[in-house]
Amino acid sequence: MGGDYGPKVVVPAALQAAAEFADVDLVLVGSEPAIEAALGRTSAALDGRIAVRHASQRVEMDDLPSQVLRSKRDSSMRVALDLVRDGEADACVSAGNTGALMATARFVLKTLPGIDRPAIVSALPTKTGHTHVLDLGANVESTSRHLFEFAVMGSVLASAVDEIVRPSVGLLNIGQEDTKGDERVKEAARLLTASNLHYIGFVEGDDIYRGTVNVVVCDGFAGNVALKSSEGVAHMISDLIRDEFERTMASRLAGLLARPVLRRLAARMDPRSYNGASFVGLRGIVIKSHGSADVVAFKRAILEAVAEIRKNVPERISEHIASVLVEKEAV
Amino acid sequence: MGGDYGPKVVVPAALQAAAEFADVDLVLVGSEPAIEAALGRTSAALDGRIAVRHASQRVEMDDLPSQVLRSKRDSSMRVALDLVRDGEADACVSAGNTGALMATARFVLKTLPGIDRPAIVSALPTKTGHTHVLDLGANVESTSRHLFEFAVMGSVLASAVDEIVRPSVGLLNIGQEDTKGDERVKEAARLLTASNLHYIGFVEGDDIYRGTVNVVVCDGFAGNVALKSSEGVAHMISDLIRDEFERTMASRLAGLLARPVLRRLAARMDPRSYNGASFVGLRGIVIKSHGSADVVAFKRAILEAVAEIRKNVPERISEHIASVLVEKEAV
Repeated sequence: MGGDYGPKVVVPAALQAAAEFADVDLVLVGSEPAIEAALGRTSAALDGRIAVRHASQRVEMDDLPSQVLRSKRDSSMRVALDLVRDGEADACVSAGNTGALMATARFVLKTLPGIDRPAIVSALPTKTGHTHVLDLGANVESTSRHLFEFAVMGSVLASAVDEIVRPSVGLLNIGQEDTKGDERVKEAARLLTASNLHYIGFVEGDDIYRGTVNVVVCDGFAGNVALKSSEGVAHMISDLIRDEFERTMASRLAGLLARPVLRRLAARMDPRSYNGASFVGLRGIVIKSHGSADVVAFKRAILEAVAEIRKNVPERISEHIASVLVEKEAV
Repeated sequence: MGGDYGPKVVVPAALQAAAEFADVDLVLVGSEPAIEAALGRTSAALDGRIAVRHASQRVEMDDLPSQVLRSKRDSSMRVALDLVRDGEADACVSAGNTGALMATARFVLKTLPGIDRPAIVSALPTKTGHTHVLDLGANVESTSRHLFEFAVMGSVLASAVDEIVRPSVGLLNIGQEDTKGDERVKEAARLLTASNLHYIGFVEGDDIYRGTVNVVVCDGFAGNVALKSSEGVAHMISDLIRDEFERTMASRLAGLLARPVLRRLAARMDPRSYNGASFVGLRGIVIKSHGSADVVAFKRAILEAVAEIRKNVPERISEHIASVLVEKEAV
């Protein structure tokens, strides 16, 4: 049980999720005394739907993935993923070290047949909905074939979670013209054009927030840069809004009167409502919460896991990839 | 004279800049009749400080750079760059096709000795100042040596324009730990650590808007993605603010009372005050304005050119690169 706050956040979030969904059982993995302390007596009301599994180690935020794999076999992260592998859990939700979680998930769960590289995907907000963006940083280097796999996985995820028949897919580039970009992006565009995906062409960074397509595909470096830059701008603007409303007596008064508006605005900009990135391409569901998630945000990550379990996301990716591979062989 | 609006924007912006700075002379390059029509009689007051140079062709936004080089030798873009090469102008400011402008600038002006690839750099806002970010899209692929050159150029620009003795430089990556990123970024980090630049290490996308360093260095793909994603988020948030203040009678009233605050906020978020990206690494000053720039924004791009002329930016980059190369040879 990791993240910046551990059981203090994860346990209440789990209790709230269990209370909200009567068919969801949760296993809390980590230091048993710490979890029991956070649970108190509230869990009794949930009729045995919350279980505790002790793990003697914890993965730190600066642990190297290779060290974790080698020497933290009884970490809460590893034990939780073992539960998924053994069918004792349908998904793993973690706020821990991203690199270690991905490496352990790949090692324990393995990738789906036909998938070479798992990816991190998240729904980023638009004015009226959201855009699924991947890869957000699981891979530092990606070939055109990997970008193609990301497109298939993103398309299946959007189709399953948002119930869109043929989600539109765009490839992130630095211009919309066919002549733009490096050879890798151009080759990925060729693969996508020849596929049965609803590929619409190159898109640019601003298209993510414009909702031009349902799925934006990019390599993990570009995706992570897009995500972090966006977070940076949103944070700066929030600060500017606060600053300006606190500047003078008159602006403080205006802020008081505008409070309901500013609250609705804050709710629509709230990054917590987008917490929970999916690791796709694995034989199991793994959801990564932001390390600094609070109870509201972590609960959102649990609900993302529930949605993916209900929609059988890994099986659907597997089927779709298989159909793409069969098509290729048939050519 | 390009961009989305041509002389209608460029001419009034030029007149305003000339009126503001008594030592700045301007040559307007493009279709003479169109420019004269936009000038009207206002230019007489400027005492011959505004000249007009006719060009019979214009570069369209979708022209390929190679076509422009070959068959548009009398375009306003080419003629303006020829003036810089021939010493008849100290800088070229254009709102035209970025790819064509860069290709023509490289061809006409040539790169500085020791610089393999010019880059596009712009100052992006932080809460209290700005961060120079490069490359924003001049190059689709960059080696570690290119990233190193970008760092030198960005450092010199920040030093000259902001009068900082040793600007701090960060290398954009998807994590701050030394183990993060691909080999290219790691090798660039080694080159920077061994240099006399004030290199502080890896930074992430959000550091751009946090002002962690004076200069953020990245390849053109990542830089362009960061810039466009940021623009997308800022645009979406502006829309959300407008939406929320127009939603009900009560929120419209609150908006009316908050108008001075919202105006100050809009001014601080105004992308026009950051218009004007520099092409660095060339034997001359070239400033690229946003294609959709209005008069205020285009004037800002002209003022960026004036600032770089006054600070002798190309000469300073040239000297700094030379000192780096000498150091290397001395080793």
